[in-house]
Amino acid sequence: MEKNYLGLLEKVNRIHDLEKTAAVLMWDKETYMPEKGLQTRIDQLTTLDQLRHELYTSDEFGEYLEKAAAEVKDFPYNSNEASLIRFIRRDYADEKKLTADFVKRRSEVSSNARQAWVKAREENDFSHFQPWLEKVVELCQELAELYGYKDNPYDPLLGKFEFSMTTADVKDIFDNLKAELVPIREAIEKNKDKVDDSLVHQNFPIEKQKEFARYITSSIGYDYTKGRLDTVVHPFCTNFSQYDVRITTRWYADFLNPALFGALHESGHGLYEQGTHPDLYRTPLARGTSLGVHESQSRMIENIVGRSLGFWKKHFPKLQTQFPQALEKATVEEFYQGINKVQPSFIRVEADELTYNFHIILRFELEQEMLSGKLAARDLPAAWNEKMQNLLGITPPTDTEGCLQDVHWTRPGFGYFPTYALGNLYAAQFYEAAISQHPNITTDLESGNTTSLVAWLKENIHQHGRKFTPVEIAEKATGQKLSHEAFIKYIKTKYGKLYNF
Amino acid sequence: MEKNYLGLLEKVNRIHDLEKTAAVLMWDKETYMPEKGLQTRIDQLTTLDQLRHELYTSDEFGEYLEKAAAEVKDFPYNSNEASLIRFIRRDYADEKKLTADFVKRRSEVSSNARQAWVKAREENDFSHFQPWLEKVVELCQELAELYGYKDNPYDPLLGKFEFSMTTADVKDIFDNLKAELVPIREAIEKNKDKVDDSLVHQNFPIEKQKEFARYITSSIGYDYTKGRLDTVVHPFCTNFSQYDVRITTRWYADFLNPALFGALHESGHGLYEQGTHPDLYRTPLARGTSLGVHESQSRMIENIVGRSLGFWKKHFPKLQTQFPQALEKATVEEFYQGINKVQPSFIRVEADELTYNFHIILRFELEQEMLSGKLAARDLPAAWNEKMQNLLGITPPTDTEGCLQDVHWTRPGFGYFPTYALGNLYAAQFYEAAISQHPNITTDLESGNTTSLVAWLKENIHQHGRKFTPVEIAEKATGQKLSHEAFIKYIKTKYGKLYNF
Repeated sequence: MEKNYLGLLEKVNRIHDLEKTAAVLMWDKETYMPEKGLQTRIDQLTTLDQLRHELYTSDEFGEYLEKAAAEVKDFPYNSNEASLIRFIRRDYADEKKLTADFVKRRSEVSSNARQAWVKAREENDFSHFQPWLEKVVELCQELAELYGYKDNPYDPLLGKFEFSMTTADVKDIFDNLKAELVPIREAIEKNKDKVDDSLVHQNFPIEKQKEFARYITSSIGYDYTKGRLDTVVHPFCTNFSQYDVRITTRWYADFLNPALFGALHESGHGLYEQGTHPDLYRTPLARGTSLGVHESQSRMIENIVGRSLGFWKKHFPKLQTQFPQALEKATVEEFYQGINKVQPSFIRVEADELTYNFHIILRFELEQEMLSGKLAARDLPAAWNEKMQNLLGITPPTDTEGCLQDVHWTRPGFGYFPTYALGNLYAAQFYEAAISQHPNITTDLESGNTTSLVAWLKENIHQHGRKFTPVEIAEKATGQKLSHEAFIKYIKTKYGKLYNF
Repeated sequence: MEKNYLGLLEKVNRIHDLEKTAAVLMWDKETYMPEKGLQTRIDQLTTLDQLRHELYTSDEFGEYLEKAAAEVKDFPYNSNEASLIRFIRRDYADEKKLTADFVKRRSEVSSNARQAWVKAREENDFSHFQPWLEKVVELCQELAELYGYKDNPYDPLLGKFEFSMTTADVKDIFDNLKAELVPIREAIEKNKDKVDDSLVHQNFPIEKQKEFARYITSSIGYDYTKGRLDTVVHPFCTNFSQYDVRITTRWYADFLNPALFGALHESGHGLYEQGTHPDLYRTPLARGTSLGVHESQSRMIENIVGRSLGFWKKHFPKLQTQFPQALEKATVEEFYQGINKVQPSFIRVEADELTYNFHIILRFELEQEMLSGKLAARDLPAAWNEKMQNLLGITPPTDTEGCLQDVHWTRPGFGYFPTYALGNLYAAQFYEAAISQHPNITTDLESGNTTSLVAWLKENIHQHGRKFTPVEIAEKATGQKLSHEAFIKYIKTKYGKLYNF
């Protein structure tokens, strides 16, 4: 046995337990914590984070890491041991680069920026947020310097969420995507009356929605003995190990889509985490490899599966019995239309699967301009509105519905947004690979059977956790680098039919 | 400023955060955790406990403690600083006495004993549990030696739950209690048909019970902005600070009492924790002083308040509108009878406020006999049944309803049980002191107004947390040491009227 490797593993397990304990505390904060418990929760999370950081960056840990690395240096690249060492070396180096002073300022600025952002939204007055956005941008710039970079300060920021991809890679993909998507959006715009979604805007009792959400997420394989579904304001999926993976959603009595497709979306994330190989338990490898690949799993289940005709051929009768008043007289084809309406809108989280990408491209471009200093914080609202007009043909009536809509810029987390659209592209590319490797997946999905697709995802993606980078996962699973092509093909086929272009 | 004291406080805050983080994890384990999340949770709790123990018993902590103690040695006894030093010195010394080997064996034995206990209950076969009970008793004996004692090995065990009281104190009180209670129980037995409780054994829809539980616990002052009520198998109250104090209960559709009085009971615990002085935040003083005094607060609200006629004069109309079918035709006097029936029963947690004490005296006596070696584990069932017959006049038909009913003896936690009955006695003594100091409390309670009583509890008990020992709290609040007298007076007055003896 490798003595030092096992010693390292013990330390890694402990650090991991602290991280996952913090995840439980954050889950509780969003779901069940009473309002006056907030300060206590912040104190607890701060302590856990400090302890984690101390254990992780201790000299003792660093020494163990190098001794363990030497012990397993001849292990194959694909082995858990070599993969863990690769991951920790990288992550440890990054963690060491963050000074205590920076971590403290980051926490203070984020907390103040968030308050200012809430106020700015309430009063629809960007000026409250502007000085804090300036500080957030400065922190992003500082973070880029701390991590270091070769070509572009955006690279190390992006790398924290989508390791192994560069800004240039993403820019290239997004430019192609934009060039292809704009004419499609315009073609749809001309035929917009072909699709009617009034069916999903009726009365859907929430208790009945809850029952159906549980049914439909179980049906795609999300395992409730290792998970649960709770109600929150901003839905998310979290996990405390592959054996405790929790999803959340929100409910509207007069609109079926948010909870239904929200739950399906989160259960896609959930499948990824529940599918992690048991051997990765209690290590940082037990987690989706990147935000982009994670998002591909949620988008796969929400859109490619969950908004397909075959899926509803199987499940629509059950949905009708759940909501007889609203759906009794509808056909599955009408319902399929209703859940696939394309319509430019102001709010990212409410966007359809096609226009969603424009919301992301816009943010990706603005983040780079702010980071380079080309765009000042005070000019953000105008720049935002101009891009909205160019990409989506609409201009938000207020900043609250414009550049103030997301919480992300209250933290120095530039590089996060692009992963959402990368998720759409990964999803389409994985899907194309899956059906080309196993043609039966297509016929299975035509009758709403998702088992073979989910098995492919588990085999090629889920089980590996963070052993491989997103670029490696894409190449192993699909034989190619990520591109916009599979997604555009998918969009053209699906929406060409729906909108007749 | 006291530099070392502040340095100590920082370390104490951290250790406290780890403890309270573990409390959140345990709360989640009992309320919402999916079944397969158990092993992950055990791993996380183990890591938190190890880290806490390491931080607490480090030489650095010990040095800070003594330097801080020297700094505040002239602070008044009542000051937070002197009180914290007193508490930590005692607790630190105890923590240091536990060897890593003992802690490990304790955890292993407890875990195995629990499994064996579950099996023994399922098969109603004590022999599965017997070898593990032997080990638990051995661990209790070892623990007593590790802590050290002067007179009685039971003393240090009891002291962990009821510091400042000795086995001799408790024995004296319980002997008096028993001598007084047995004839009362016999007098009631003769008139047992005077009280009819069929009213509370009807159909009470659970959703309606939940609404009422929330209403009634709010009415006594439990604050839902700092708390919540959830459903569990074994009800408890826990807290993560005085600003996040959570209660739990269980629901039966055909029996009103368990959830209603269970929720009131837990909200009594909750009031205690929510009433802790803000200055004690994030320190181990922010917690009820002992299990006995804690139980006095729950028993006060459950029984002295919650099972009084005045309380229901105020709240019964609301209860009737909640359950019209079951209660519409009943009078408040009939309801008062129904919730105060005295009836010897096998199961401790289902016992009424009078016979409950016999269940505890029995366990207190058996624990001492086992600890001293006088009673062997294999002879427990017979000894149990004999004592049940002597004290309650009944013999359990099975060991599952007898000596296997409680989970407590799966852990080396002898000394815990007596605190339940001490709680009844403290409650009556506190109540007597409160009404003698503020006679308006009596008239307030006669019309169901609990505000003045709760204010007295907060002033004399809640706010102090663990600054004072239970003996100090009793003497400060009531001017006397704890005795059985107030409780017996309360029982005679109340049940004399109900049962006409």
